[in-house]
Amino acid sequence: MSASEFLTSPFHRFLQIEVLRMEEGLAEIRLPLRPELLRQEGSDWLHGGIVAALIDIAGNAAIRSVAGAGLPTIDLRVDYLRPSRSEITASAKAVKVGKTIGIADIEVRDRARNLVAIGRAVYSLPGSPAEPARS
Amino acid sequence: MSASEFLTSPFHRFLQIEVLRMEEGLAEIRLPLRPELLRQEGSDWLHGGIVAALIDIAGNAAIRSVAGAGLPTIDLRVDYLRPSRSEITASAKAVKVGKTIGIADIEVRDRARNLVAIGRAVYSLPGSPAEPARS
Amino acid sequence: MSASEFLTSPFHRFLQIEVLRMEEGLAEIRLPLRPELLRQEGSDWLHGGIVAALIDIAGNAAIRSVAGAGLPTIDLRVDYLRPSRSEITASAKAVKVGKTIGIADIEVRDRARNLVAIGRAVYSLPGSPAEPARS
Amino acid sequence: MSASEFLTSPFHRFLQIEVLRMEEGLAEIRLPLRPELLRQEGSDWLHGGIVAALIDIAGNAAIRSVAGAGLPTIDLRVDYLRPSRSEITASAKAVKVGKTIGIADIEVRDRARNLVAIGRAVYSLPGSPAEPARS
Repeated sequence: MSASEFLTSPFHRFLQIEVLRMEEGLAEIRLPLRPELLRQEGSDWLHGGIVAALIDIAGNAAIRSVAGAGLPTIDLRVDYLRPSRSEITASAKAVKVGKTIGIADIEVRDRARNLVAIGRAVYSLPGSPAEPARS
Repeated sequence: MSASEFLTSPFHRFLQIEVLRMEEGLAEIRLPLRPELLRQEGSDWLHGGIVAALIDIAGNAAIRSVAGAGLPTIDLRVDYLRPSRSEITASAKAVKVGKTIGIADIEVRDRARNLVAIGRAVYSLPGSPAEPARS
Repeated sequence: MSASEFLTSPFHRFLQIEVLRMEEGLAEIRLPLRPELLRQEGSDWLHGGIVAALIDIAGNAAIRSVAGAGLPTIDLRVDYLRPSRSEITASAKAVKVGKTIGIADIEVRDRARNLVAIGRAVYSLPGSPAEPARS
Repeated sequence: MSASEFLTSPFHRFLQIEVLRMEEGLAEIRLPLRPELLRQEGSDWLHGGIVAALIDIAGNAAIRSVAGAGLPTIDLRVDYLRPSRSEITASAKAVKVGKTIGIADIEVRDRARNLVAIGRAVYSLPGSPAEPARS
């Protein structure tokens, strides 16, 4: 998937996500800090929900870089390690790309490269029988 | 937590979340369908990442209704069951509110009341020693 | 799946699991308390690892009751709510049985019917292309 | 925790777990292949439930190596990557040891060092207020 394909998603565009790297089995994307994404007024912490969204997007891109298009998320887990006070970067790698599912591990870091959250997600692969697409 | 407190979060306001119900151990919130939240241009599917965010918000509200303020998310799990083609509603209930953690179960349904996703999340409780707040 | 088929698994037999109920989309099994399964000498708490194993077995049985044989586990999540001081019973229900995956929710209760743990697991379905079987 | 302390658990002894390595933030343990742990008669595959148990044990040991005794599991996730046809080894590392919780990542490999399963678990720390111990 190219960076321009990546931005055909209205949600990706809305978040102003930048694609930093897209290789076979690897994806790295950046989410800029914006006031609408803050947890509380006057806080400079991103809401945990948007961190979860970024993890889903990055994992999906890493699996798609191996398997092609059409990859609904089956399930997603996020562990929050520390609050994020800056733009954040999600780096995802494909752990497995099998016949029916792909698994990705995702790390989210702040500008100082501290680990903010870690995620793991399972995606349905395009070769599967027509499970209705999600994600 | 009152509905007005709920909307002190810029992210909650940005998503235009409506609070439908807020009781001891229960929270129900609605996310309107908006073009920016779509997965693909021309699609009427919400992005899975925004579903995950809504699950985090609803679970947090359910635990907060029992335990009070300041509840960073420790971890979050989402299972996607079907695509959502409408506004969605998340109903969360507190499964456990212990001394240090709270656990919530969350169901997300579309306008036809079909189950779109299910979530489970663990939150840190305010009585805990000062773990840096997240979420 | 009948109770006798269930016991063709050496691991199921070894744990001395009893099948209490097996219906379309539902399975209920019981694990007797045995000294080898304890967490510590002199304790009467079951080890959390064996609770996880019971959850996997029950969820698998619930999905199999709908979909037939051959259901490797894709992933498994367990939340521990309280220690178990007795035999325990796991009740599983199928939340979704799609074309490629099945999802089960599992509750584990002690003899007094208190909730000990809750689980959620995703299983690969037999109709899927030949993903090597697990579980 | 020393290897001999590790074996005060009846369940650990029963599984005949060997401690291969125990350092600050790291634990490596081995589970020998035994007929009782097989998924099916005549199969040489370990049951997925026992893989989950091993992951819980290894993650607990890694966190305990930093934080000391008394670490009930809060929650556990296992992703199964391939069937295991041999003894298996679980390597766990502490990802975070905070004031109230610890998080561990665990890899399970077969004798040929292929990845069989990956796990992630959250443990309660001894400094926390008296949440009743689990695991």
